[in-house]
Amino acid sequence: MSELSVNHLLGIKYLKEKDIQLIFETADHFKEVINRPIKKVPSLRDITIANLFFENSTRTKLSFELAEKRLSADVLNFSSAQSSVKKGETLIDTVNNILSMKVDMVVMRHPNPGAGVFLSKHVNASIINAGDGAHEHPTQALLDSYSIREKLGEVKGKKVVIVGDILHSRVALSNIFALQLQGAEVMVCGPKTLIPKYINELGVKVETNLRKALNWCDVANMLRVQNERMDISYFPSTREYTQQYGVNKDLLDSLDKEITIMHPGPINRGVEITSDVADSKQSIILDQVQNGVAVRMAVIYLLASKIKQ
Amino acid sequence: MSELSVNHLLGIKYLKEKDIQLIFETADHFKEVINRPIKKVPSLRDITIANLFFENSTRTKLSFELAEKRLSADVLNFSSAQSSVKKGETLIDTVNNILSMKVDMVVMRHPNPGAGVFLSKHVNASIINAGDGAHEHPTQALLDSYSIREKLGEVKGKKVVIVGDILHSRVALSNIFALQLQGAEVMVCGPKTLIPKYINELGVKVETNLRKALNWCDVANMLRVQNERMDISYFPSTREYTQQYGVNKDLLDSLDKEITIMHPGPINRGVEITSDVADSKQSIILDQVQNGVAVRMAVIYLLASKIKQ
Amino acid sequence: MSELSVNHLLGIKYLKEKDIQLIFETADHFKEVINRPIKKVPSLRDITIANLFFENSTRTKLSFELAEKRLSADVLNFSSAQSSVKKGETLIDTVNNILSMKVDMVVMRHPNPGAGVFLSKHVNASIINAGDGAHEHPTQALLDSYSIREKLGEVKGKKVVIVGDILHSRVALSNIFALQLQGAEVMVCGPKTLIPKYINELGVKVETNLRKALNWCDVANMLRVQNERMDISYFPSTREYTQQYGVNKDLLDSLDKEITIMHPGPINRGVEITSDVADSKQSIILDQVQNGVAVRMAVIYLLASKIKQ
Repeated sequence: MSELSVNHLLGIKYLKEKDIQLIFETADHFKEVINRPIKKVPSLRDITIANLFFENSTRTKLSFELAEKRLSADVLNFSSAQSSVKKGETLIDTVNNILSMKVDMVVMRHPNPGAGVFLSKHVNASIINAGDGAHEHPTQALLDSYSIREKLGEVKGKKVVIVGDILHSRVALSNIFALQLQGAEVMVCGPKTLIPKYINELGVKVETNLRKALNWCDVANMLRVQNERMDISYFPSTREYTQQYGVNKDLLDSLDKEITIMHPGPINRGVEITSDVADSKQSIILDQVQNGVAVRMAVIYLLASKIKQ
Repeated sequence: MSELSVNHLLGIKYLKEKDIQLIFETADHFKEVINRPIKKVPSLRDITIANLFFENSTRTKLSFELAEKRLSADVLNFSSAQSSVKKGETLIDTVNNILSMKVDMVVMRHPNPGAGVFLSKHVNASIINAGDGAHEHPTQALLDSYSIREKLGEVKGKKVVIVGDILHSRVALSNIFALQLQGAEVMVCGPKTLIPKYINELGVKVETNLRKALNWCDVANMLRVQNERMDISYFPSTREYTQQYGVNKDLLDSLDKEITIMHPGPINRGVEITSDVADSKQSIILDQVQNGVAVRMAVIYLLASKIKQ
Repeated sequence: MSELSVNHLLGIKYLKEKDIQLIFETADHFKEVINRPIKKVPSLRDITIANLFFENSTRTKLSFELAEKRLSADVLNFSSAQSSVKKGETLIDTVNNILSMKVDMVVMRHPNPGAGVFLSKHVNASIINAGDGAHEHPTQALLDSYSIREKLGEVKGKKVVIVGDILHSRVALSNIFALQLQGAEVMVCGPKTLIPKYINELGVKVETNLRKALNWCDVANMLRVQNERMDISYFPSTREYTQQYGVNKDLLDSLDKEITIMHPGPINRGVEITSDVADSKQSIILDQVQNGVAVRMAVIYLLASKIKQ
């Protein structure tokens, strides 16, 4: 039987292309499961998973929790947005304490980039990175690619533009890694001030003109505008942003071809995209959410089977 | 087999009298179940329920959660008292996201009147209104009537006075609808400033003198004083309120007959009622709480059986 | 079959020596259970437990929750750090309401000393005190003694020093009671201002010099420094405290014998103990955490078997 080449899911950059394929084939199976009347499998009755969220989260937390429950794992939730748990040493203590209670797997969101990697070197459990600062958010990238594959048949050879604040986005970085690994072409599009300087080293195209970007792509992944950042000087105002980088139905209809619209949520309707775009047939936003549960079930299942060996 | 005439429980005003009877007969069964050593039934193993509380709540949330667990449903909890989720569109997005994770039923408390109705028109799940602003709180009214039926044999023909801040109370409005539907006579009693102008259209008696109201009724449902409202100009002070609308043992004993005392909780002891009244044999306050779980199990069970068809 | 002499676990001071032995023998069994691949037993399928935390807590709450889930009990969580639930009467109302939902056992943390005792007199459920102000924290003391027994074979005759802020510590008080009951010798060590005046009545030794205390003992239990108290006038500064009462590796190595180091967590690394001490072979800090789940399973199991009779 196939297995993952890694013992943790710390970032897409640690995965091989065949890991992604294995995750997707496993997710296909679980997607069937969660469409049955009884959406549960008893696979992980012997696994205890701790969800450690050191940053606020709603949908990612719910999605992981649902994935864990549908695998029949035992679930422990720990949430803390407090700053007291931000130093590396204290993080190890917190997690080691939780692990001493015989926890097999940790799903962690943390404000510090690299928190998951750091942890995986110091504690004896399988770690899933559910977002570490502006660094990586690997399960989001996996569910995004899975949703493209579902909509367009395959990811290979597809042209994907990621639109928005690339600089602060862990979603963007993980997506770039995942798409390139699967042989897609990637472009980023946004205000110059929100495109990181290291972008050229990643081998992606850069475009500041949205219409040109959309005319190039098969898929546009519209990042969420973080309103709380909009008062910083190098940011455009929300109105400016929407004028230059928001997608409305007129813009979509004026393109040469029908592109697919994605969004990691939650949507600021009328900012990144208008409601008629969000709810159009070209949008696969709700498929992304649904696929998130199946993809997370696959990741958890595959990592757990490595623990059991 | 009988079934409800509705697919959602949005408010008592959408129910028929036979719906209430069906809920009560089903609750009779579940009340037996929860008095057994093993208080669970496997009925809803195939149903996932999301509890979405956009307003703080303790007892209603606990009661629903317990009802769901005792039916063996899968439970997802989402709490948010933040103002960011108050616009209709965002509400749909939040809920649609949760539903994309394959949720069958939503129990929702929301500060906006009509939030449940709005949602039921836009998403594909069974909705239970657990309180929408000052509008309705239907499961509270059902458990109140169920408790009267348990104590007095039937609701029909009984005289019930609701005492307190009628103007801001979803408990009052749902109780008025439920009691009238079952053929009870309803009176409201409180300071004039706290009685809504539309009260006459509802066909209920109005009384500002507490002693007269109590002498008239079989049952007095004492609403909770919302202390946080007491500094608004048209409100009496807490001391004034208690003097005119608080019930103590002397007052109770001086009445012509033994009336039944109810309270939706949490009690401000010494304000609406004194401790000796709350803990007296005439009080069915703790029965209300206990019946709440059975009535909510019945509502969830009956709505779920409509989903499965 | 043996059983506890009490119906509640309100404090160590209400236990007999044989109660502690019974708890430990039962915990031995559960410690085996939680080291199996499937860490659950179906023992308490018919028991519903409410965790009522009126004070913030992370590890104690997680530990209890895990213990309850591994016994297959139904678990209800209620957390509130709000000051509104601090009056005795309201506490009874809150808990009575929860009990009316057919809850068999209450695990409660509360800022008021004696809250558990008060509750046990007024409500009909088995109460476990998970910390009541600066009074008692019995399960912590039990898991501490259990960990000493595991490391050193027995508690009887062992010399244990508790180091730190004895005055405000429920961990210290419960440990003193538990250790004395089992025939250990107890010393407290800390700044004079943080040693309570009633200490002499408890029959424990007092030492303000840390080196002398460590040279005397077999085990040092290092209490957590509550940083939030350090700005009060009669407290030393953190730096002063660490200089006089912190343990580092040099100090440990300079002692006549190898002592065992304990800490109830969470550790302030570099304050009470340095990292090399916390992570040394002499430290049983993570064993304490692991044993906490087994000991709590034992306490819950034994109290539940008294309910069922």
